[in-house]
Amino acid sequence: MALALSLGRRGQGNVWPNPAVGCVIVNAGRIIGRGWTQPGGRPHAETMALAQAGDAAVDATAYVTLEPCAHHGKTPPCAEALVRAGITRVVVATGDNDARVDGRGLSLLQAAGITVETGLLAEEARADHAGFFTRNAEDRPSLTLKLASSFDGRIATRSGESQWITDAPARRLTHAMRARHDAVMVGGGTARKDDPSLNVRGLGIAHQPTRVVVSRRLDLPLMSKLARSARDIPLILCHGPDADGPLKRTWADLGAILLPCALRENQIDPQDLMRQLAGHGLTRIFCEGGGALAASLISADLVDRLVGFTAGLVIGAEGRPGIAATGLQHLSAAPRYELDETRRVGPDVLHVWQRR
Amino acid sequence: MALALSLGRRGQGNVWPNPAVGCVIVNAGRIIGRGWTQPGGRPHAETMALAQAGDAAVDATAYVTLEPCAHHGKTPPCAEALVRAGITRVVVATGDNDARVDGRGLSLLQAAGITVETGLLAEEARADHAGFFTRNAEDRPSLTLKLASSFDGRIATRSGESQWITDAPARRLTHAMRARHDAVMVGGGTARKDDPSLNVRGLGIAHQPTRVVVSRRLDLPLMSKLARSARDIPLILCHGPDADGPLKRTWADLGAILLPCALRENQIDPQDLMRQLAGHGLTRIFCEGGGALAASLISADLVDRLVGFTAGLVIGAEGRPGIAATGLQHLSAAPRYELDETRRVGPDVLHVWQRR
Repeated sequence: MALALSLGRRGQGNVWPNPAVGCVIVNAGRIIGRGWTQPGGRPHAETMALAQAGDAAVDATAYVTLEPCAHHGKTPPCAEALVRAGITRVVVATGDNDARVDGRGLSLLQAAGITVETGLLAEEARADHAGFFTRNAEDRPSLTLKLASSFDGRIATRSGESQWITDAPARRLTHAMRARHDAVMVGGGTARKDDPSLNVRGLGIAHQPTRVVVSRRLDLPLMSKLARSARDIPLILCHGPDADGPLKRTWADLGAILLPCALRENQIDPQDLMRQLAGHGLTRIFCEGGGALAASLISADLVDRLVGFTAGLVIGAEGRPGIAATGLQHLSAAPRYELDETRRVGPDVLHVWQRR
Repeated sequence: MALALSLGRRGQGNVWPNPAVGCVIVNAGRIIGRGWTQPGGRPHAETMALAQAGDAAVDATAYVTLEPCAHHGKTPPCAEALVRAGITRVVVATGDNDARVDGRGLSLLQAAGITVETGLLAEEARADHAGFFTRNAEDRPSLTLKLASSFDGRIATRSGESQWITDAPARRLTHAMRARHDAVMVGGGTARKDDPSLNVRGLGIAHQPTRVVVSRRLDLPLMSKLARSARDIPLILCHGPDADGPLKRTWADLGAILLPCALRENQIDPQDLMRQLAGHGLTRIFCEGGGALAASLISADLVDRLVGFTAGLVIGAEGRPGIAATGLQHLSAAPRYELDETRRVGPDVLHVWQRR
């Protein structure tokens, strides 16, 4: 199952709106099939693994990181394929909360006389499928917020200098994290100030995550890297209902996808923002700031995962904060995160936290 | 030598103005003497180890973490004691930069026909003796700055709530760190706001580090824990030349030690502050804030070591910063620190940095 999980992760960022599933088929102690959800979401992991196993799948055991699907979608149901191939035992890490599956995959297998076991490495599997699950259950993608800051939590000097607080290994790891998400998201201020590409560089990766910019008024530079690359790498602009009509047309002409969002207290409503992104099919979002967007997501308790890089220098209180005002009154009201991992990355410290 | 270093560390915080030295005497592969600088700075490590070794010291090897002293101070010189005991080989981790020793200890041993080797685990020894060395060479103690903050670098909410951002294990480790320093230091604002004791609690330690409060005007509460305990645990108040005379007398009557410091730009001059503390004999200072004092020490590039605890919660930009404005204009001008250690401490992250 550990192998199946690691195979499944190969699809992360590249299979939305589908889950990134892994599957390993074992017969008499030998691995005879390995599969994972393919780019775009199809074929499914089970189909790939069964094709590799061929006739050897008869009487074999299949390890799958998510309950096999039971509905006829764009592909025939995987549960049926497992039955047809002669698999006699299926080990599933975790159930599927998709209303179209939700136990039906397991029932279908059991009805065919297949031994079904569930719960092996379930916690890991739930973490890997988090985006798919929150989209099904809460109508929102899972959200990771990244912050690269000085020892005292500043992301730039007063004048906006931020290159480079953290070093090359941290930046390389950030690009690897981007590649494992469906989309990289920033606020309009960051898009204006930094002229970012928000693409994955230096990792030999062909697939690029979608870029999302949140800007109420769409007042973004038209001569920017994002504008120039909007036809090559998907660019979603989340704007308010009061965005300028001609600006909307210009951006659409440049190739951007426009997602209108509701307002709340004069800002893009973070809840509706997440709903719109889920509606577009996105399951895993990697937010890299800026401070106002990060604060609005934190205040709405929509951040599932915090990724921090801390560098060995002090900027001081006049430097720019990574997260703007949140309106927090009492410490007891602050959402708490559990430490998942901390380690040295080049000269910097990485710390990754998961919402409790 | 690793054992000698770990023995030497037992004296840290409790032997100033002397260095916390460790000594191990080995004869024919057997450890026959172990010693470390005793509370108050005397007897020295070599004296303790030689006393334990007795006659077995003849033809033995002594491992010492610092060049043995050669001058007649309050104790007779250790170099002479090693010669007299019949030691034939001395391995020294690092030389002593005290003008009264500085090579004379080694010369004295060599002149007596003893084989002398230096440089074994020199880097570790120099780190352990850092405070003693900076006091000799730069007329200042070594300085560690501690910050316990949220993920986004805040030490309290807007209203000042700070208990508890980090959890019990981080607080316990902080007390252990206090115990290894000669003094714990805070600014006047922290002393007013938090009414701290600044003592070591819960570790079964009898010795308490000296407390230092930096307050230009000495406008500190007289009904505070610090005031009440000034006769039991040394309390040094560093004040400006314009502090109120009656206030000075009141604090002196309460048992506090008053250290007048020069001003620079209307604040206590951090350089002079360090000079005054070195003049008092302190070699290792542990500063726990507040933001203004921390910023003034960082700006003057007087901080040798940063200790960070990061907790898994977000406060937002209206929270209190751990380090106030530093006047930093360009990132390239910020002093850089090298990561020494990072690990999980309870639910929090510890990261320790050393000035490059």
